Amino acid sequence: MKKTIAILGALDTKGQEYAFLKAEIEKRGCRTLVVNVGVIGDPLFTPDVRSDEVAEAGGVPLADLIAQRDRGQAMEVMTRGAAVVVKRLYEAGEIDGLISMGGGGGTIIGTSAMRALPVGFSKLMVSTIASGDTSAYVGTTDITMMPSIVDVAGLNRISRTIFTNAAGAICGMVLGDVAPAVEEKPLIAATMFGNTTRAVDNARKIMEANGYEVLVFHATGTGGRTMESLIESGFITGVLDITTTEWADEVCGGVLSAGAHRLEAAAQKGVPQVVTPACIDMCNFWAPETIPAKYSERLFYNWNPNVTLMRTNIAENQQMGEIFAEKLNTAQGPVMVFIPLGGFSEVDFPGKPFWWPEANQAFVDALKKHLRPDIPVEISDKDVNHLEFSRRVAEKLLEFLRNK
Amino acid sequence: MKKTIAILGALDTKGQEYAFLKAEIEKRGCRTLVVNVGVIGDPLFTPDVRSDEVAEAGGVPLADLIAQRDRGQAMEVMTRGAAVVVKRLYEAGEIDGLISMGGGGGTIIGTSAMRALPVGFSKLMVSTIASGDTSAYVGTTDITMMPSIVDVAGLNRISRTIFTNAAGAICGMVLGDVAPAVEEKPLIAATMFGNTTRAVDNARKIMEANGYEVLVFHATGTGGRTMESLIESGFITGVLDITTTEWADEVCGGVLSAGAHRLEAAAQKGVPQVVTPACIDMCNFWAPETIPAKYSERLFYNWNPNVTLMRTNIAENQQMGEIFAEKLNTAQGPVMVFIPLGGFSEVDFPGKPFWWPEANQAFVDALKKHLRPDIPVEISDKDVNHLEFSRRVAEKLLEFLRNK
Repeated sequence: MKKTIAILGALDTKGQEYAFLKAEIEKRGCRTLVVNVGVIGDPLFTPDVRSDEVAEAGGVPLADLIAQRDRGQAMEVMTRGAAVVVKRLYEAGEIDGLISMGGGGGTIIGTSAMRALPVGFSKLMVSTIASGDTSAYVGTTDITMMPSIVDVAGLNRISRTIFTNAAGAICGMVLGDVAPAVEEKPLIAATMFGNTTRAVDNARKIMEANGYEVLVFHATGTGGRTMESLIESGFITGVLDITTTEWADEVCGGVLSAGAHRLEAAAQKGVPQVVTPACIDMCNFWAPETIPAKYSERLFYNWNPNVTLMRTNIAENQQMGEIFAEKLNTAQGPVMVFIPLGGFSEVDFPGKPFWWPEANQAFVDALKKHLRPDIPVEISDKDVNHLEFSRRVAEKLLEFLRNK
Repeated sequence: MKKTIAILGALDTKGQEYAFLKAEIEKRGCRTLVVNVGVIGDPLFTPDVRSDEVAEAGGVPLADLIAQRDRGQAMEVMTRGAAVVVKRLYEAGEIDGLISMGGGGGTIIGTSAMRALPVGFSKLMVSTIASGDTSAYVGTTDITMMPSIVDVAGLNRISRTIFTNAAGAICGMVLGDVAPAVEEKPLIAATMFGNTTRAVDNARKIMEANGYEVLVFHATGTGGRTMESLIESGFITGVLDITTTEWADEVCGGVLSAGAHRLEAAAQKGVPQVVTPACIDMCNFWAPETIPAKYSERLFYNWNPNVTLMRTNIAENQQMGEIFAEKLNTAQGPVMVFIPLGGFSEVDFPGKPFWWPEANQAFVDALKKHLRPDIPVEISDKDVNHLEFSRRVAEKLLEFLRNK
């Protein structure tokens, strides 16, 4: 069957450029499905999804957007709508790839739609701003960025060369199937911090000895987000979520937050997971002078000149207990929580600066109070880096995977 | 004839990953040409260009690199060598595309080789650092960046998916030919600043009325560099270099320098060009507090709260006159310089803060003293934005193009 490539773009102002791209893609034997996001004028050619349908999906009728003449609002609605439309098309199995071209605004709309699609799904953004900071556009996804060199405005020798390369690239991506592995090991995702290296190393070795491959994600915000997105995309067989510290940063406003959706993907996809509250005793900031004034009375630890750790307090730990329960309660698959009461990190350990058993207990109490009764919690008197603790965690995950 | 894709990578540490990529590319009907840049161990398979050949091209024998065990030096030599090797292969017509995969170091080597190749030549970098600031890697080229999501280390479900997409993308890019235009207008490159908008608009209209398409580059450093690289790549038919202000920033250490190669490409490629010293009266800085202390006695103009212009002085204008002469003296094609003695910009104009005829004259005297005698210089008493001045400039370029 022919592969179908979704083309997302403004057919009013850039109709000519998209008509060229469409023809190039079809010349290579792919079908196209054009989504129009232009709100200014009539499309140069008839799209498969009209801009009023995109606006509707974004929550505001197109007529209102046109009447209000508010460029910012129109951008926002079309950005939201494009992501909804494209995700629907993907879920209905109607598209095999997505391509878009644009400047600043077009790149926001295009990549926002692409970020709604899983890793591995072919996505190509031809952009005037591909040479620069792409993190807001690419995020933790595999969006491929091709510099447009000149503005996406008009067909000339340069733009035709670039657009032709882009058509070739997206067709080449969707036309190949991923080669089956000769020997494929199922993937385990694990979360690590400098502070939990021994725990994760030990658990990793146990998993590897049992035929798994372990991908280790540093719990720096990006790491947690990437892991969540790979779980969502279906690449991950089991999760060793040993280092959930990103929640401390989310709750306290630290610099390594992974956002409010951390801990959701494995639960919602029913992927077996074991979870520990390691390093939620610490919220990360950069150099001391960057710490918000409201925290001036708190306990800090200078990890290095550029990283300052703040001890989370009882109220914050209580809040995290509630959040962990709320997230894990949505689990469609096996899950178990392990509590290392002997120390949540290397610095939350008897004799070390962050040792505060009452704060840890506040987490445990709130968690148990709100957690679904069928989700087991194992309390250990060991600290997180004790080999017995990480062995228990890994062995439970192995048990989940065996029974799957 | 089969298309050939150059694969650049470290076959010692990443041999398995590159073997997979090579097989995927060949499966799609392309030939491969493998360049090994690994210096640590033996390659996993035999490359077409060995790492000792790359090191040699970088100026240091591989044996020395291995003996010295200096990772920084090895990186530097292999980076230089890879660019030389790849450029040679391109110039010999032996390759149609280039692909590389890597983390921080691999991305430096791979993109540095890619930057040696012209715009339009297919180049794809699979990188762990594609989501972030790519400007040092992509520069003003059309290097396409694909995020690797996981480290380029080992084959697993994720990396195989990404590498397969990458193989598909690079094959798709080289397998298509650029569609001939129905109506193709030759391209003119023009350089503009806010301060020369009227001049460039007028010249652009004259060129367009004569069947040319004009690409306008903002003289912000990136703009000038991009224009130079497009001229080098052979896309540009004629150059309206009205705004050469980037040289003031290069000479004085301003923030919008286009580097020391500005004004070279058109001369060396023999592309007809007309040049004016517009806006060399001003060097650009950001907010006043960012200006180097050594300039405290100079004349400034606050363009806006974030942009501060410094008036270039007599010595600097003299130096620029010499530089312009040196660059233009290498011209293989027609070139003419136009001097708007009535004002080099909107602020270098009678009654305006930067008006300084002696400084402008210093530029003219130095230019004339060093310029090849066969290159004409026309002195006008008009300012750069006077319509008569820009009309003369555009008409001279039209004349050059007619006689070509």
